[in-house]
Amino acid sequence: MSIVESTGNSMKDLVVEQTQQIASATQCIAEVNVEYYRVPLKEVLADAKHGMHTHFELVLCRIVCDDGLEGVGYTYTGGSGGRAIYSLLADELAPMLKGMDAGKIQAVWEKVQWHLHYVGRGGLVSFAQSAVDIALWDIRCKRLEQPLWKVAGGLSNKTRCYAGGIDLNFTQEKLLANIQSYLDRGFKAVKIKVGKEDYREDVARVRAVRELIGPDITFMVDANYSMTVEGAIRFSNAIADQDVTWFEEPTIPDDYQGYARIADATDIALAMGENLHTIHEFTYAIDQAKLGFVQPDASNIGGVTGWLAVANLAQAHNLPVCSHGMHELHVSLMASQPNAGQLEVHSFPIDEYTKHPLKLDADGLAVAPDIPGTGVVFDDARLKDYLIHSSN
Amino acid sequence: MSIVESTGNSMKDLVVEQTQQIASATQCIAEVNVEYYRVPLKEVLADAKHGMHTHFELVLCRIVCDDGLEGVGYTYTGGSGGRAIYSLLADELAPMLKGMDAGKIQAVWEKVQWHLHYVGRGGLVSFAQSAVDIALWDIRCKRLEQPLWKVAGGLSNKTRCYAGGIDLNFTQEKLLANIQSYLDRGFKAVKIKVGKEDYREDVARVRAVRELIGPDITFMVDANYSMTVEGAIRFSNAIADQDVTWFEEPTIPDDYQGYARIADATDIALAMGENLHTIHEFTYAIDQAKLGFVQPDASNIGGVTGWLAVANLAQAHNLPVCSHGMHELHVSLMASQPNAGQLEVHSFPIDEYTKHPLKLDADGLAVAPDIPGTGVVFDDARLKDYLIHSSN
Repeated sequence: MSIVESTGNSMKDLVVEQTQQIASATQCIAEVNVEYYRVPLKEVLADAKHGMHTHFELVLCRIVCDDGLEGVGYTYTGGSGGRAIYSLLADELAPMLKGMDAGKIQAVWEKVQWHLHYVGRGGLVSFAQSAVDIALWDIRCKRLEQPLWKVAGGLSNKTRCYAGGIDLNFTQEKLLANIQSYLDRGFKAVKIKVGKEDYREDVARVRAVRELIGPDITFMVDANYSMTVEGAIRFSNAIADQDVTWFEEPTIPDDYQGYARIADATDIALAMGENLHTIHEFTYAIDQAKLGFVQPDASNIGGVTGWLAVANLAQAHNLPVCSHGMHELHVSLMASQPNAGQLEVHSFPIDEYTKHPLKLDADGLAVAPDIPGTGVVFDDARLKDYLIHSSN
Repeated sequence: MSIVESTGNSMKDLVVEQTQQIASATQCIAEVNVEYYRVPLKEVLADAKHGMHTHFELVLCRIVCDDGLEGVGYTYTGGSGGRAIYSLLADELAPMLKGMDAGKIQAVWEKVQWHLHYVGRGGLVSFAQSAVDIALWDIRCKRLEQPLWKVAGGLSNKTRCYAGGIDLNFTQEKLLANIQSYLDRGFKAVKIKVGKEDYREDVARVRAVRELIGPDITFMVDANYSMTVEGAIRFSNAIADQDVTWFEEPTIPDDYQGYARIADATDIALAMGENLHTIHEFTYAIDQAKLGFVQPDASNIGGVTGWLAVANLAQAHNLPVCSHGMHELHVSLMASQPNAGQLEVHSFPIDEYTKHPLKLDADGLAVAPDIPGTGVVFDDARLKDYLIHSSN
């Protein structure tokens, strides 16, 4: 036997042995525990369509394998619907998941999707599915003893990011002070809400912010689908000289052709995604809405699995993928992907309830946690005051 | 003053006076009570994608005005998600609805839609919204002392109907016996499930049913979105000589272009709607999927308001509107509309729990109830054994 053959065989044997170990590893789902939290905001935040935010809701899904390994998944809302998500997880999904193989993430994903299809195809089911999927990815990463940014893709551990204000109710003075606080924290990109009753006020706020931040800071605007198509065109053209990187949700997310009309009549790239909850909605949006940026949210597009599916779809269409909300998780997903655009650093203070708050490097890049798992570890002691329901 | 002027003035005064009476009528919502029932089926029913049905879920929403008038709305599911709908109604919507004017149905509709938009845009929110809306239409009709078929449109009190089997798990012998039972009850139209592992079995079942019913009975098939586009084309062409009126949900409802490809390659009209939960989804389906029939379900398209919006959209596009499920309510909506196609008489035995089970006339037409309200009056004594949760 030659040395080459010998080496070849022993390598092959080693791979077979490892594969068998992985295949035989005990990964059955033994427990699914669900917790519903209602967390107050320190100050009331507003945008053009959701009214005043006073709380955010957090729904945790803890999945425990029969060897004791636990994964934590979660989703969140701006204040409504969290109890219905809790019900979907505790009443419908927990009993179904027990006994399934936690390592067969796509099999679980399909099972959830089809089991709840009649009441699903997006909406609240996508939020519940996200919490389950994130827990399973947490387990996968922990078993591999790798951080999510590596397991999900592994391009890098850093990604560009921006601070996204929920600031439509701020006076212009307060708006500028808030933007200054972002710059002071090291952000190189910022976003403000638009959608005032009188669009000229939006134009004035955009100009004031650009004057404050200077020409080198990346700047985006977000109307939370509050404008008509014609209103969005008028506004976009009025700020065409302000070097705005994207105009987010100018009109309702359902009106793909309306987006295309705005894109045809203006020069600022369009962005959306937080309100699209199935891969099919993203397919239509990409095919028909002439977007410049795609913004899936792992908390409502079906978790890590759903988010990566949209990221891949975007790459296939030569589009950057961005993220909406839950930056503590998205930092790892965005860092992992070759077509990453900008990570949104959200205004909900979820960082105050986790053990690894977001870190920026000296260049203003967000740094993904390097611990095994999703990198999101909740600080139970801080959260416990806001627990409303628990299935334990 | 001429007689004409005098008459004109007194008519105008009368109208003004009546309008003021209506405007000043007390219609404030005082109470919203929610009930969740889980009702067993006598036998297990199956289709190609939802697996075995053993129960259906019924969620009732009772809205009481401050003058004591009560309206009853409801929605249902095939067995999953009902508790989440209960939560949306009891936790999110009931507190919001109290104090609103029950007569401003569209205002309530918009409020519900936008309040839950972030977790909505279809899905479970549409089911909850439907229950609220149906209760308000019940109140509207009771105040007018008119039946729903008149208030919703008033074309007629009768409509064509078909018996829709959930029968994919039936042997061919049992399938034919079941179809015969429909004919014995006076139905002039029937529908069967298709989507067997081997499509040739579907073809054989279609041929056997057509042979049994003869050439004069209207006949439809329903694949519950279980086929590929190519599989659907193959199947449709294989039964092209069987005079099938529509082929329902050949593939996933999200694939509008896939429907168009099927329509281009076959001769049997396509139908869908039970899985489309917003007016925008129907707009896209009508624009892109080359449908022959549109099938909204008032229990998941936003109630009577949502169903009528789709019916109007269909009429504007020269399409018949049909209905899915809850025939006890849809009989009145279908009868009211000029472009009504076929009312589905559903296999879930909800008629056993209402006081006005569906009636067919000698021509096989379904007859809408002539009592004030939606015509759906639940038999609480029969339902009470299946009550799981109540907000009262």
